[in-house]
Formats: sequence, C-alpha cells, structure tokens
Amino acid sequence: MLPVAIDVMSGDQQPREYIAGAVHAMRDDAGLRALLVGDSALIESELRASPEGVRARVEVVPTTEVVGMGDSPREAIRRKKNSSMRVAIDLVKEGRACACVSSGNTGALTAMAHFVLKTIPGVERAAIISAIPAAHGHTHMLDLGANTKATPEQLRQFAAMGAIISRDIHGRENPRIGLLNIGEEDIKGHEVVQEAHALLGASGLNYVGFVEGDDIFSGDVDVVVTDGFTGNVALKTMEGAAGLIADRMRREFNASWLDKLAGLVARPVLRRVAAGVDPSRYNGACMVGLGGIVVKSHGRANGVAFSRAVATAALAARRELTAHIAQALQAQPTGR
Amino acid sequence: MLPVAIDVMSGDQQPREYIAGAVHAMRDDAGLRALLVGDSALIESELRASPEGVRARVEVVPTTEVVGMGDSPREAIRRKKNSSMRVAIDLVKEGRACACVSSGNTGALTAMAHFVLKTIPGVERAAIISAIPAAHGHTHMLDLGANTKATPEQLRQFAAMGAIISRDIHGRENPRIGLLNIGEEDIKGHEVVQEAHALLGASGLNYVGFVEGDDIFSGDVDVVVTDGFTGNVALKTMEGAAGLIADRMRREFNASWLDKLAGLVARPVLRRVAAGVDPSRYNGACMVGLGGIVVKSHGRANGVAFSRAVATAALAARRELTAHIAQALQAQPTGR
Repeated sequence: MLPVAIDVMSGDQQPREYIAGAVHAMRDDAGLRALLVGDSALIESELRASPEGVRARVEVVPTTEVVGMGDSPREAIRRKKNSSMRVAIDLVKEGRACACVSSGNTGALTAMAHFVLKTIPGVERAAIISAIPAAHGHTHMLDLGANTKATPEQLRQFAAMGAIISRDIHGRENPRIGLLNIGEEDIKGHEVVQEAHALLGASGLNYVGFVEGDDIFSGDVDVVVTDGFTGNVALKTMEGAAGLIADRMRREFNASWLDKLAGLVARPVLRRVAAGVDPSRYNGACMVGLGGIVVKSHGRANGVAFSRAVATAALAARRELTAHIAQALQAQPTGR
Repeated sequence: MLPVAIDVMSGDQQPREYIAGAVHAMRDDAGLRALLVGDSALIESELRASPEGVRARVEVVPTTEVVGMGDSPREAIRRKKNSSMRVAIDLVKEGRACACVSSGNTGALTAMAHFVLKTIPGVERAAIISAIPAAHGHTHMLDLGANTKATPEQLRQFAAMGAIISRDIHGRENPRIGLLNIGEEDIKGHEVVQEAHALLGASGLNYVGFVEGDDIFSGDVDVVVTDGFTGNVALKTMEGAAGLIADRMRREFNASWLDKLAGLVARPVLRRVAAGVDPSRYNGACMVGLGGIVVKSHGRANGVAFSRAVATAALAARRELTAHIAQALQAQPTGR
C-alpha cells in the first residue's frame, strides 16, 4: 500500500499533537507508511523520540504555508498552493499517497479536495461520512458538513455512496437507508426531502423511508442520509449532549466523599460505557465521491483521536473505497 | 387564572395516560383548573379514582373526533372541526381557557393554532421553543419543528421571542442569543443564516453570533435560534444520544454480578445525573408568536411527562407570555 499523506499543521491543536497521532497510528499498524506534510524542522525534532521502526516508514514533505481556520475556501484554493493541506491532497492526486488526512478547516478542505481530485462520474458533490455508535453497533451518517445544502439528486447520490461504505466497512450486505426528516409520515418535511424521498423510493437501494434524529442511534437503519448543514448540527449536538452527561457525572461523583467512593466502585463499568460512545474513537470522517480518499479529522482531536483518523484513511485505502464507489455509481441509474 | 384546556385524546399514548398526567399536574398546583377535552365517558371513568379536590377543578368538554398522527394539516383544519385538538384551541380563542396542551401531530397542531389563534403583529410564523439542559442550567432553543424552514426575517423574530421567554421564564436579564450554524466564523453557512446573521447583528438584541450544535449545552448562550427542520432534528438527536448512553449503562451495569453490585452502589448518583438531563422533565414546548398559549407535549410522553407540559402551560399563562411577546415585538424594528 502507498503511504498516507498527513497534514500535521492544520487544526486547533499544535502540530506536535498530530505528529504524535501519526506515530501512534504507525505503531498500531506495521503495514502503514506516512508522508508527514509540514514544517520539516519541527517534524524531524518530534520524530526523534519515536522508535526506529516507525521512523523508517516516515518521509517528511516540507511545506511552509498553513490554511487558517478562518480562511475562506476561495482564498485557500487561490493563495495557499504550498499549504500542508494542499500538498497532502496533491500527493494523492499525483499517485504518491493512497489517502490524505487533515484536521483543518472543513470548508477549505472540501473546496481544495474538489478542486484537485474532482468528483467521480455520477457524483455532483462529495459528502463527509462517519460511523456513529448505535444500538446495533454503528450507523453511517452523511453528509456531515462538506456542503451547506443538498439537492434531492445529491441526497440520492449520498445514499448510494453510504450503502457502499456500510457494506465495505461494516460488512452489511443490504444496508437499510433512511432519509432524515422531522417525522416518519410520507407527508412530512420540506420539498427537498419530499423529492429525495421519491427518488430514493425508485433507486433500487434498500430505502426504508423517513427517519428522525433519534433513529441515528436506534439500530433501525444502517445509513442515515441528510444535507451537510443538518448533518453537521446533528453530529455536534450529539457530541454536546454526550459531553454534558459526562460533565454531570464527574460533578455528581465528586459531590461528597460517599459519592466519590461510589465513583471509584463504578469506574470500570463507566469506562466501558464511555469507550463505546466516545466520539474520539470514531474520529476520522471520510470525504466520499472524489477521485481519491480524503479523511477529515475533528479540529480539536488530540493525538489518540488523530491516530484513529489515520487508521480510517488506511482502512479506506485497503478496502479500495474509491473504486467501489465509482463502480456502484456507474451501475446505478442517475435518477435523471 | 382561567383553566388550561387539555386535549387528552391525541398522541401515541392511550387517553388514560394523558388524563393521569392532567390529574398529576393539578395535584402539584392547587391553583390550576382544567378543561379536559375528549371522550366524556372515558374521562369521567378515569377521574373517578382521583381526589375530590382535583375533580372539583375539572370540567369535561366532550368531543368525538381525534386528529390522527398521519392526518395532513390541511385535512385536520377542514375536516376535524370537532376534534379534541381543535376544541382545545378554540377554548383559548373564546377566552374560556388561558392556554391549551396537546400531544398530537405537530403539523396539524401548528396549522390549527395558526388558523384559529393567528400570529400576533410583527410575527409571520409561530415557533416551538423549549428549555434544554445545559452547563449553566438551561438553554432555550427555537424553532423545534413548527415550520419546516425559516426566512432570515423569521429567524430574527424567533430570536426576539426567545429573548422574552428566557427573560420571563428563567429571569435572564439580557439573554445571549446564538444562531445555529456549521461553524462560528462569519463566512460559514448558507445564504439564509448569512442574511439572518446580518439582521440579528443590527437587531438591538444581545446577539453573540454563530454557534454550533455543541453550544446548545455549553452555557455560552441562553437562546439558540434555528429553523424548525434543523431544530427538530437536533432535539431528537440529543434525545437519541442520551437514550443510547442510558441503554449502554443499563447493559454494562448488568454484565456480571460485580457490575450489578457496582450499579447498586452508584445508583443514587446516577439517578441525580439522569434527573438533570431527563428529556421528560423538560416536556412541554411552547408554541410562541400566536394570540394565545399552545403547549406541545411529546407524542410519546407518559403521564408524568405530560403533567410537566400542563405545568409549562400554566406557568406561561401566569407570566403573561403572550402579552410580553406582543409588547416586545411591537417595540422592536421589524428589520424591513
């Protein structure tokens, strides 16, 4: 397998956190090689402490520019041609990397990835997809924010891509697909979901109809399809709700010495619960529908979470997601 | 105070559950009177077991029709003029009730409430608002699903109404208002949130800018404004995420006898955590912007949760929300 190109400069954390994440991923996966893109002096210095077996699989690709969290997509494309984000994407385009990973600005990453890698035939816009913990294991949800809206036809394309991911990553043979809406009855929702509902019903996919926000977790569907605005809000809302519950637990288990004792006794069980729903374990959302694999890590992801994003990129490359999605989209009617 | 009109027939539960909820609310609040709207034989039979002090404060308003969960708003308005939902709203319009409560079909309730009560001057569309548990206590969020979309001007009106509710219900003097988006930077989001951002910046409200899904819980804002599609998805997503965590806890605390023991020790603390974030404690979302108070209870709410919706209606009536919102909207520039 070709190496994974890793942008270690973009995001809310210091580069050393992303470099540590890359090293962590390579320790876990002996078949993984990496191109670390960014400030070479900094990267070399951080790598000094890592085992020789890891360093032998790393190549540093020096860049000087960085895309800022406030840079507009247009500015990023025009002015940041030597940025770590752009160079990482270019390495995929040039066939030197099997995939790229970045924690940077989603808008800039989406725009640059579209500009450099282009969408594959049958796909108008790429979408961001991730696994979400659910009652039956995981649900895949897309779009999580590559776009601010979606047409009915784009939602149909998202559904087709989501079905491939669910099949190839989680081995679900005929994944059940739901379209996110504010009610399950056929008459509910605005015209975009109404039209997408009709397209999906005729798509040949295993479409089960409208689902609501709580169905992301219910186990009743394997893929939840929505536009990038709604999907991103839903993703951050679930992170926020889980964070609030975790905070309340910490507070209540510290309220008195008796509560602290109870916390000590319950800790192993609570750790298992947390491990099952921890968003950082699911870090690394794939941008699908492009001529190459791009993985978006959470901007605030720490080293361990970032290593999961790198692992997601390696898995997507090994499973040849790009080729499978291209095959599936060509085999299906375009709905037009 | 006038009685609260309660539709005991609509929703996913049996009428007896809603009747029990109404009785529960009246037990808790000695100043509360109720008009129970629905099948009179059924209501009378259910009331037989309740204390005389409660029965004396109940009047039954007999109806025969019920709005179904699948009825379209148009059908509900045209054909269900004698439904429990419609009669409850009519009682508010006629000045016989201070507020009404229903667990029925949101689309039909919204349409009927607009048709009968009309919006107040300065409000184009009513919105559904509810308190959501947050790090600093509560955040108020609207619209939670009265509408499937919103114009920038409607979002500004929602913000103005949310500010009044936050002030009158939670005593926040100058509530901080955030507009839900997929990034906090000024350039993020589609044209509707961009235009609403400009209107809110010039509104004279304490507008802090764009917020993301996790800010609903962060304590950084008091009011989160969004369209009814996004708001409804976010609300149900947080319910689903909390439900998944609760399920995982039950499972892990039952995995072995040692885990069961740990669960027993931790139970009092976990109960306090659950009480603080339990959605049923926050049941009863107000429809604001109409010429009368309409409270929407969750369709699946049980008796106890339904009693909270009734209490919410009584509180809104006592605080004279309708008059305060009308005053605030007239005092503000319309943004046009």
